[in-house]
Amino acid sequence: MIQNYKLKISYDGTRYYGWEHQPDHETIQGKLENVISRMLDIAVEDFKIIGAGRTDAGVHAKAMIANVVLDCNMSPDEIRDYMNRYLPDDIAVLEVRRASDRFHARYNAVGKTYRYTCFDGPVKPVFDRKYYVALDEVLDIDKMRQAADYLTGKHDYKSFCGNSRMKKSTVRVVDKIEIVRRKGYVYMTFHGTGFLQNMVRILVGTLMEVGYGRMEPEYMIDILEAKDRKVAGPTAPAKGLCLIEVDY
Amino acid sequence: MIQNYKLKISYDGTRYYGWEHQPDHETIQGKLENVISRMLDIAVEDFKIIGAGRTDAGVHAKAMIANVVLDCNMSPDEIRDYMNRYLPDDIAVLEVRRASDRFHARYNAVGKTYRYTCFDGPVKPVFDRKYYVALDEVLDIDKMRQAADYLTGKHDYKSFCGNSRMKKSTVRVVDKIEIVRRKGYVYMTFHGTGFLQNMVRILVGTLMEVGYGRMEPEYMIDILEAKDRKVAGPTAPAKGLCLIEVDY
Repeated sequence: MIQNYKLKISYDGTRYYGWEHQPDHETIQGKLENVISRMLDIAVEDFKIIGAGRTDAGVHAKAMIANVVLDCNMSPDEIRDYMNRYLPDDIAVLEVRRASDRFHARYNAVGKTYRYTCFDGPVKPVFDRKYYVALDEVLDIDKMRQAADYLTGKHDYKSFCGNSRMKKSTVRVVDKIEIVRRKGYVYMTFHGTGFLQNMVRILVGTLMEVGYGRMEPEYMIDILEAKDRKVAGPTAPAKGLCLIEVDY
Repeated sequence: MIQNYKLKISYDGTRYYGWEHQPDHETIQGKLENVISRMLDIAVEDFKIIGAGRTDAGVHAKAMIANVVLDCNMSPDEIRDYMNRYLPDDIAVLEVRRASDRFHARYNAVGKTYRYTCFDGPVKPVFDRKYYVALDEVLDIDKMRQAADYLTGKHDYKSFCGNSRMKKSTVRVVDKIEIVRRKGYVYMTFHGTGFLQNMVRILVGTLMEVGYGRMEPEYMIDILEAKDRKVAGPTAPAKGLCLIEVDY
């Protein structure tokens, strides 16, 4: 029976070249498609898993959403269990559900939540070291929050776009940037309708410059107006970033 | 100034051959001693870090306690920061304090808490996968708790000792075995005055047999009486075990 399925997927992106297919590189999409190909004995060219977005190399996901149309007699839980049996232990299918034919994981996504984790305390924790970025300087959270206010809203985020050849609109809505400190960790949570390539990591890299005292919060206005990637801060390391949730 | 220092150390044991020195193998003690040797420009033969206990290869520690006598002019925080700068990111010195000359991390330890983590839910979590053991069967926690009652107290734990050539007394006091289920995880917490080689892991392996329905809780009495390692269950994998706390 031909059926569209919605998948919820969690992964540790450390050893992958991101979500999307790359020739000669391991990607999350590639791994998932290989397992489905094996499960149903079909060629990987004959179907496509569509992800809500493309996470960069090294970025993690707590709950990426994807969809795939399959001709399959297995129940959703059977699909989930089969996939988890053959997937490596850094990728897990949390949930498989039947979806309507019209459900498209990318086009139907209306919002995304990303969280960036760094640690600026004196002793770096060992157990979660692959999921946060260790900082040598202490961040000034209050200044970062002021800067985050300027960066929130509907703006042209061209200065925060990692793709210099981007031809389409770079206007996006970021309705929430929350910055919280807890036990040496600093968590930055971003919610928006959609994000440009590297956008969250460039926002984080810029907010960190503010946190270090190297940029003033008000300078965010200039960065947005410049529409020039070179004016914003550096792209923060991938390992601290995690896709938390996709809204439909 | 010659001073005895108390160290609190956290480590991910995954890639180490345990706490204690091993020729040609990386160990936690070896890593720590190399860094101190470098810090004070002294030979590793000229001092010794004494740990509260010897964790096995692959076992983790949230807070191992150790002591070391050094001739050093640095403050405790300077020692901590220097060590963390040169230690790999899977070992962290949480705290360094001046201790009395008489403080001995092993002899003065009066109790230890170990926690064992496994996961028997349908979907195995990815982010902490190095710190729990994934099970294919669901554990019967109630039966395990009954078995744990028999295993608690002052007993000769010879059947739970991994060292077949152990000549000294195998009598120990385990005053608490707590088994808790939370979101697919099963946590087993052990507190006792001291533990024999592999003892916690053999206790866990035996409790799992009970949880799987392959041993009855009452059989624990027979195992204790047998004083024979072969009668108890298997040694549970190292990766699920973590030293949580040492009491003085």
